[in-house]
Order: sequence, then C-alpha cells, then structure tokens
Amino acid sequence: MATMKQVALAAYPQGNPRPEDFRIEDAPVPEPGEGEVLLKTLWLALDPLIRFAIDEKPLTGITHVALGEVMYGPAVSLVVKSNHPDYAPGDVVEGRTGWREYAVVAPDRSDYRGPPRKVDPALAPVQTALGALGMPGETAYVGMIDTGRVQAGETVVLSAAAGAVGGVAGQIGKLKGARVVGIAGGPEKCAALLEQGFDGAADYKAPDFAQQLARACPEGIDLYFDNVGGEVTLTVMAQMKRGGRMAICGFIAYHGVGMEGPGPDRLPGFFRMLNAKSLEIRGFAGMMAGPEARTSLAAWYRDGKLAAPEAVVEGLEAAPAAFAGVFSGNSFVGKLLVKVSEPT
Amino acid sequence: MATMKQVALAAYPQGNPRPEDFRIEDAPVPEPGEGEVLLKTLWLALDPLIRFAIDEKPLTGITHVALGEVMYGPAVSLVVKSNHPDYAPGDVVEGRTGWREYAVVAPDRSDYRGPPRKVDPALAPVQTALGALGMPGETAYVGMIDTGRVQAGETVVLSAAAGAVGGVAGQIGKLKGARVVGIAGGPEKCAALLEQGFDGAADYKAPDFAQQLARACPEGIDLYFDNVGGEVTLTVMAQMKRGGRMAICGFIAYHGVGMEGPGPDRLPGFFRMLNAKSLEIRGFAGMMAGPEARTSLAAWYRDGKLAAPEAVVEGLEAAPAAFAGVFSGNSFVGKLLVKVSEPT
Repeated sequence: MATMKQVALAAYPQGNPRPEDFRIEDAPVPEPGEGEVLLKTLWLALDPLIRFAIDEKPLTGITHVALGEVMYGPAVSLVVKSNHPDYAPGDVVEGRTGWREYAVVAPDRSDYRGPPRKVDPALAPVQTALGALGMPGETAYVGMIDTGRVQAGETVVLSAAAGAVGGVAGQIGKLKGARVVGIAGGPEKCAALLEQGFDGAADYKAPDFAQQLARACPEGIDLYFDNVGGEVTLTVMAQMKRGGRMAICGFIAYHGVGMEGPGPDRLPGFFRMLNAKSLEIRGFAGMMAGPEARTSLAAWYRDGKLAAPEAVVEGLEAAPAAFAGVFSGNSFVGKLLVKVSEPT
Repeated sequence: MATMKQVALAAYPQGNPRPEDFRIEDAPVPEPGEGEVLLKTLWLALDPLIRFAIDEKPLTGITHVALGEVMYGPAVSLVVKSNHPDYAPGDVVEGRTGWREYAVVAPDRSDYRGPPRKVDPALAPVQTALGALGMPGETAYVGMIDTGRVQAGETVVLSAAAGAVGGVAGQIGKLKGARVVGIAGGPEKCAALLEQGFDGAADYKAPDFAQQLARACPEGIDLYFDNVGGEVTLTVMAQMKRGGRMAICGFIAYHGVGMEGPGPDRLPGFFRMLNAKSLEIRGFAGMMAGPEARTSLAAWYRDGKLAAPEAVVEGLEAAPAAFAGVFSGNSFVGKLLVKVSEPT
C-alpha cells in the first residue's frame, strides 16, 4: 500500500504556534470511494487565519482541528483519480484539503464553502488560485468594486492590509486611481506596505494609531475596507467623511467572541457615528463574486497590472516551521506557499 | 407694552411629564432687532421627543431647557415684523421657536437646523409643515425612498411606527406596494397601527416581541427603517433577509448615552449579523431631503394618497396637559398639535 506524509496537530499552540506543535506522520494514501475524488496536493497556502482553527477552545463559526487530526488549510491539487462526473484526472482544483500529500474529497458532500473549484492552468500559475486569483482576490474584488464602489481620487483605508485580501484590495484601489492607506501591526509591516505601493500606512499597535491614520488621510476617509472590527474600526469610523462607505469583510477582533463581548457596549458610539455622518456600511463575502471578478483579476494579472508576490518553501515537512515563522516576526512579502509536489 | 403668554419649565419631570412641571407666564412681546424677525405662533407640535430636552441631566446632542426657561419645540408661525430681507410680514414659517405666543428669531444666527423655513399655504393647511409635509415627512421620504429604496412586494419594518415619522414612512411603504409592519410599545398602539393601514404590528414591550415580529414577517425583512437602536434593532436584525437594507434614522435607545453604554459589548453580534447576511446599513437625516421630497409629499397629500391625521387642542395654555397626556396613555392618532392663534 502506498504511503504519504501528512501534518497532524500535536499540541494546541499556547500563544504563537511553534514547529513542535505539529507532527509529520506517514499514512496510507487513501482510496476514493463512490462519488469521491483523489487529489494530490501541489501547493498549500499558510494563511495566518489557520491559527484560529487550532485554538484549544473551538471558536464560533470557525473550523476546528482536534489534537491528532490533520491540519486544516487551503490547497491547490491535481485530480489523480475520480469517481465523480465533474472531475477528471489531470484537473487542477482548489479546496481546503489540509496539510497532506494526498486527500480524498466528496464534492457532493462539501460544506458551505462548496466543492473543490476548478483552476485553469492556462490563465496563470496554478498557485495564484490560493491568492490573488483565488478566494482572497475575489474577496478583495467584491469589497472594493461591487460593495465599496471605489472611485478615482478617493481616499481608501484597508485594515489587515498586509494580508492576502488586503494586498489585492490595495492594488485594486490603486488601479482605480484611489489613494490607498493600509493598516497593519508594527512598523515593519507598515514599511512593507509602503514598499508594495500603498500611499500611506498606520500601525494599529502604536499608541498614536489614530494620529498616524489622520496624518495619512488629511481629508478624511471615503471608503474603509474592513477585516478586523473592534477598536480599529471605531477609530477609522471617527475619521470617515460624511457619506463615506464601509465595506465589512470580516472581524478578526471578534473571533472567539459570540454575540456579546466584554463591556462597555460600543454599539451606541457606532450608531452615533453611522448616523451623524450618514455612512453606508455593507457586509459582504468573497462568495458573492460574480464571474467578472475572476475575469478582471486574471486580465489584470496577465497585463502585468496585478502583482501576486509569493514566498515559497519546499516540501510538506517545511510547513510547520514556515507557519510558525508567520507569527514570530518573519516578514514575508506576499503569499506564503508550500510547494508540496510537482503536477506529474 | 403688549404682553403675551409663554410656557416655562417649572420642574424637571421625574419620569413622565405632568402638567405641574410647566408654568404659564406673561411676558412682553419681544421687539425684533437688526436682522431679526418677529413671529406669531400659529401651531405647536407636541412631539414626544421634546421630553429629551427637559431631562434634568442634559443629554448628549439634544437641546436642553433649563429650569425657568421657555419650553422648546417646533412651531408654525406668521411673520408679523421683519428686519431681514428674506422674510416679509405675512410669510408663514416653520422653526423650533418654542411654546410662546410670539418669538423673535435671527435667521442668520440659527443653529445647525437652519433658519425658519418658508411654508406655502397654497399647498396644504400650514400645520402639515409640522408633520407629513414637514421635517417628519421629509425624514420618512429620505429613509424610505432615497436611503431604503423600498420596492413593491418587499416586507418593510418600521420602529417608532406610531410616531410622526413612522406614520408617514408607513404610508410611503404602502404607496410603493410594500408590506408594512410597525413596531410600537403596547397593544393599544399596535392596534392603532393596524387601524391606520399597517399590514402587521409587533409590541416591543411584550415578552414575545421577537415571535410577534416573526409572525408578522414570515418571509423575513427586506427593509428596516429604524428610529430606536438598542435591543429592538438587534432583534429586527436577526430577522433580516440576506442582502436586506437598514435605514438608520435615529436611536432613541441611546439618548443620554455617550459613545459607550453599559456592557456587554453588543458590537460583535452586530458585526456578525451584518456580515453573515451581507446587510446594507445606512445612516441618514431628514436634512438630506432633496426638493423632490417636498414635491412628492405635497402631490400625494393633494391627491388624497397621503393622510396627515391630526389631534388638535386649542390655546397655548392647553399645551402642558396635552403634552403630559402623550406619556400617560392618551392614544392620539396622528400628529398632536396645539392651535395657538389664527393667522390674522
């Protein structure tokens, strides 16, 4: 029986993940059953959000990995065997199949994220389906274009700007002629934003965050693309222009928090600013992307207008240390990827 | 020297206002100075919101009446003397000139609400400028049409539906072919809403408020026109349809509360629902009304499509008892007005 490598969760991280929190294992390559497909993993994306899946306490609305289970995470894979009519050997797909060399999936029993998505290798290197041309890119597109309706000359602020979504959203803002200011944690990440072409940056961990933001946005903010919620959002909101727009993508600040957090109640101030400034606030999700999102992102990429920077580590065994590095100050620029195998 | 009557605040109401909290006084009719205008009060509107102005503790963002001062409130008046080029004797105007038979105003030194607004007596009875054809009507128009973009067949929910704004907003919803459900406090007010033509009603004071609302909106809510904030809004939000719209007019629940209220923090749940349902939430104000708001409201009124029900008491001296009655269970239907004098 053929065997493969996989990465299991050995210990719940206490604070930042360490390489020792993970264990490389040998396991049999699984066999696809009725309606199932066998995938060979080509690329893994080491998204920081994976950290939420391995918290000791399961977090509301977040996939949870129990001790001993294979690590969760997005991957691009090659179909090697298929017992499903929609997939054929040789197809490249993107799905959340985890840190393993092979995976079996049942497309008809997939969760709300849907079955593995086909990736067109003619369009761009297939690993871009994990970043700029995949769900992060589509999320950025929906937020900036459909929901945020960014206009030339506007001042746009992005939170989690150093992330995969923020990086593409910032580029879309620039493509559309806006002035783009990113929020990130720490002076290094802020400096990296400026290098990537952001017009300004503000460090939410700095005591003078609000002042940094005000200096970067002297005329106020037209559009805020938000990934974090909490105090960062309230600080930005206080600097929105009258009639400004807020596109709410997510709320990292509230992961692990249910409907109510520790007091005081910040909803009164939220309503006060919403009303006083006649703001428009809209929630959205990358799943709302229409086909034009993919088409536009691919065209921008092909024409050299959209960069998809990547930092690549080789081999599944390198995943634990690389993932831990995300949290210990390694400042990769671009999407952190693990190249697991060749598509052969 | 000519004298007039005015109503002063004799005591801060403890809970509901009582007639004894007010004092009828004689005062000299004031003389307009440079740039000023002398107004003769024709009508007063006894809006429940006036209660906030006479709280012992001044409330954030709300006009405050100190002990002994003349009561605050909206009025329609006749210009009797003018030292201002924009106003001529015989003009009818609407402004917040208070509970007095005569008032002097300085249009160039008015607060953020702007100078007294001209009222066209040919359009409709002038007192409608305090309700359906005035700021309450325009606020309803902006919220339902410009901000809420109500569509035929939609389910619309209004909070503070028994109020002046809610009454017009509900009618606009019906005019546009929507199903309109009102939220009010107590079974009597809810019954009055149904009599006025609302398709459903829910009593926010009832323990089964959420269930009442769900029964009235079995398919969920497309548009919520909100005047109250707080727990009512969160209850409604949980019943919004995916992609639903919330037009935020005000937040009675937060009057007297600054940016932060007593915990827990309800913002996480707000963000969670906003994002999970991809809601659109927009703050607005009646001041945003374009000229088409007035034109449309007047045309609907003229064509008999918009009712402007009123309950009238006669004479300034009747104001205190009538105002107190608002809070002690008198269930007036329509705008509560004091007819102070004839336009002669």
